[in-house]
Amino acid sequence: MLQLKHLPITSFNENIAYIHRDCSIYKIDNIKSMTRIEVHGGENPVYAFLQIVDNNKIIRPDELGLNTEAFKKIGLSEGSKVTLTLTPPAPSLAAVHRKINGNILSDKDYENIIDDINAGRYSNMDITSFLVAVGSFITPNELLSLTEALRGDRIVDWGNEDIVTDHYCLGNIPGNKTDLILTAIVSAYGLPIPKTIFPSFSNANNSADTMSVLANINLDIRSLKKQVFEKRGAIVSLENLGIAEADKIISSIEQQNGLATLERCISSFLAVKTAAGVTHLLVDIPVGSHTQVRNTQEAMRLRKLIEYVGDMLEIHVEVVITDGSEPIGNGIGSVLEARDVMKVLKNEEDAPNDLKEKSLFLAGRILEFDPKLRGGQGYVVARELLKSGKALDSMEQIIKSQGKIKQPLQLGHLTRDIVAQTDGTIKRIDNNFISRLAILCGSGQYSGAGIDLLKKTGDQVTAGDIIYRIYSCNQNDFSFASTILENGKNGFEITK
Amino acid sequence: MLQLKHLPITSFNENIAYIHRDCSIYKIDNIKSMTRIEVHGGENPVYAFLQIVDNNKIIRPDELGLNTEAFKKIGLSEGSKVTLTLTPPAPSLAAVHRKINGNILSDKDYENIIDDINAGRYSNMDITSFLVAVGSFITPNELLSLTEALRGDRIVDWGNEDIVTDHYCLGNIPGNKTDLILTAIVSAYGLPIPKTIFPSFSNANNSADTMSVLANINLDIRSLKKQVFEKRGAIVSLENLGIAEADKIISSIEQQNGLATLERCISSFLAVKTAAGVTHLLVDIPVGSHTQVRNTQEAMRLRKLIEYVGDMLEIHVEVVITDGSEPIGNGIGSVLEARDVMKVLKNEEDAPNDLKEKSLFLAGRILEFDPKLRGGQGYVVARELLKSGKALDSMEQIIKSQGKIKQPLQLGHLTRDIVAQTDGTIKRIDNNFISRLAILCGSGQYSGAGIDLLKKTGDQVTAGDIIYRIYSCNQNDFSFASTILENGKNGFEITK
Repeated sequence: MLQLKHLPITSFNENIAYIHRDCSIYKIDNIKSMTRIEVHGGENPVYAFLQIVDNNKIIRPDELGLNTEAFKKIGLSEGSKVTLTLTPPAPSLAAVHRKINGNILSDKDYENIIDDINAGRYSNMDITSFLVAVGSFITPNELLSLTEALRGDRIVDWGNEDIVTDHYCLGNIPGNKTDLILTAIVSAYGLPIPKTIFPSFSNANNSADTMSVLANINLDIRSLKKQVFEKRGAIVSLENLGIAEADKIISSIEQQNGLATLERCISSFLAVKTAAGVTHLLVDIPVGSHTQVRNTQEAMRLRKLIEYVGDMLEIHVEVVITDGSEPIGNGIGSVLEARDVMKVLKNEEDAPNDLKEKSLFLAGRILEFDPKLRGGQGYVVARELLKSGKALDSMEQIIKSQGKIKQPLQLGHLTRDIVAQTDGTIKRIDNNFISRLAILCGSGQYSGAGIDLLKKTGDQVTAGDIIYRIYSCNQNDFSFASTILENGKNGFEITK
Repeated sequence: MLQLKHLPITSFNENIAYIHRDCSIYKIDNIKSMTRIEVHGGENPVYAFLQIVDNNKIIRPDELGLNTEAFKKIGLSEGSKVTLTLTPPAPSLAAVHRKINGNILSDKDYENIIDDINAGRYSNMDITSFLVAVGSFITPNELLSLTEALRGDRIVDWGNEDIVTDHYCLGNIPGNKTDLILTAIVSAYGLPIPKTIFPSFSNANNSADTMSVLANINLDIRSLKKQVFEKRGAIVSLENLGIAEADKIISSIEQQNGLATLERCISSFLAVKTAAGVTHLLVDIPVGSHTQVRNTQEAMRLRKLIEYVGDMLEIHVEVVITDGSEPIGNGIGSVLEARDVMKVLKNEEDAPNDLKEKSLFLAGRILEFDPKLRGGQGYVVARELLKSGKALDSMEQIIKSQGKIKQPLQLGHLTRDIVAQTDGTIKRIDNNFISRLAILCGSGQYSGAGIDLLKKTGDQVTAGDIIYRIYSCNQNDFSFASTILENGKNGFEITK
């Protein structure tokens, strides 16, 4: 028996066990490569991957260390007696190898793979193999199997609600925080909308980051349900919901190795939204040369795929294809985006019109899920809810209910103004450049970092006009961001 | 500036940097997933992947910890001042993504990928992506590019030697230690044979393990050259040779996730053997229903591929296809195999004949690389060298020169005899079953563990005869091995 010790190291997802090279019980000096073990002593065995320690201060020879991820899972206190056994690779890896070899996998295969991932039996490398294998080709039926497996059995029960709505945007548009505004509008109308927010595709700032500067977003299922029953809306992260857990694990690996495909993304949002008990889902596919979906054909192909999987899962899905060629709103970065969202909700004069219009359009489509609403009336109703201040009122209730963040919005103290080099009209803003610049500024890491676009496409400028301002919270990020601006490129195309 | 600290944790290949959550300099509490950093302060920046620590005893907020792999690379002492910067994913990952999408990569792509792997810029997940991508399809030309990139520029120079020989066996046959015997024969003849031994495909015992119970195998290039010039032969691991380094990294990942393909294996041994300065290589492809190569067509396809890549790399390659349906020799496990090897070399009466004959056959083919030898005479010369004791003498010189292991060969103390259930003739021995059983007994981990086959295919037995004996070094392994023997299966097929 070894004594359990918590080594408070966070390894991003993988369960790591640490054992001393001179372990008093298990002879491990012959271990040549990563070894899979089961740790016994808790309610269930915990799978972990072994690392070897050569220092008694970290792990003594009579101890077994677990990193934070594994220690949480075993549910024992430090000093508890544990044993370990070697364990073979997860049996479902055989199916992954068949997939690598170009085979089509069955429902059962996907179920087994996802079960093993949930159980922590897949190393990050194993998950990567799986992602590359399904990334290179997956049939629509396999996508359905994968989605069903990811959804799992735990589905949120909304009792008597006939319609539970939500929305998902397939692709990152800098500044696009329509989801916060449309949630406020839809809940003001009275349709339940438990909006779950996914991690972003890249390191970019996402809606979860933006909502975080306004309110707590880490609700559990009980609080989420209570709030939606009372306030009709919520804007929450997936973190503490305890649904579609394997999807979270896989998404975190995708973030780390950049292997996400649009197909996998479809399986991800359909699994999560169905697990969240959503009955009516609006999917926005923005198309643009600098977004995830480059052209309308590709968008159409994805639409069919989403509709097919959605229909089979018995969720009502509507897909809209929108223009994704430009940033939406003025601010990019949590604080700036939160500012834009509140400006729109407060009907302020300088609120970004594109953000407002897109939010109204999407909210209108969701409202039309209500059978009582006449076709085509959604937009008008949405506009009325916004104009009357009811949407703002809804948002304020949501924020209060989730737990308002008391700290005022604070922008980064390091700023730099970027000016137009010539007179003319702004013809195009490069999404990619702006996204990359925002990340370099530190948005996604620091709420106060980001970019404030003072001019947008179509605006007239004269040389020397400020076109945007960058904000950073530390010198490191600020220097990084400045570097890519030195060579005169700024992401804006200006024509005479 | 942070203070460098060595956290003596071995993470199997990956450079890990540990930073305190409240790091005094870098604000890291917003890091959501694995983050790539460069650590500056040493001669070259060291790439590493960040893990977060919540305990001052492990890492203080003003320290940066490096695991054993990374600490070795940075070459600084503890307490040195270091800084860190975030670093983007390795640029060559774009090529890996293109490969995942089904494209053919160029020479330059493979070169960049291997360079980045060498520099430690690929996480284990990145390497896994690469392996799955090239595992699903690779053209012969790509295989050549990969092999050349893996070989690198560092090629061992053998001066005036016109012929430098070696041998490689593509597939695991339990007990197959022909390479030790043929090395002794070839060096007794006088052809230089610097035999490099690869890690095994599985967790099975391999020739490096077996040679390790007889002699030190961790030579550096200088000692290897000196010994081969003097003794004509050597049997060494790749560990300290400093050639084809990226191949070692990739192989260790393949061992961990079982993703090795035969194509990748070809790139691996051709890269290493050419880097080792081998001019004439004999490749043995054992074919059998329970080996890596299942049938002759597949063996033929691989032969052509090996010949193609070998020709382009200007190494003379000869491929022989042999029978791989049965274990070779009697013992499986380091001590038992070493015993068999020495029995053959000593011409002992009970030396396993199959091991002897296969060694003579292969050695004979290598001897015929010598232009002075008449075609077809290799076998006869090899037999003479064995019979006369010259091969034994060579082996003893090799062992002495590399550093003889003084400890006597010691078998595991836990044994169990497996007996024939019926009278009859042994028709077949199941390679897979025997391999698996040997691993469960602890062979590959403990030199004294393994299986001693007392009967072989073709032998007559009566019910109750001992057909083999298993050896384990600890109760755990012994119980494991016993479990799979409980249901009456023993891997032997006996017919009336």
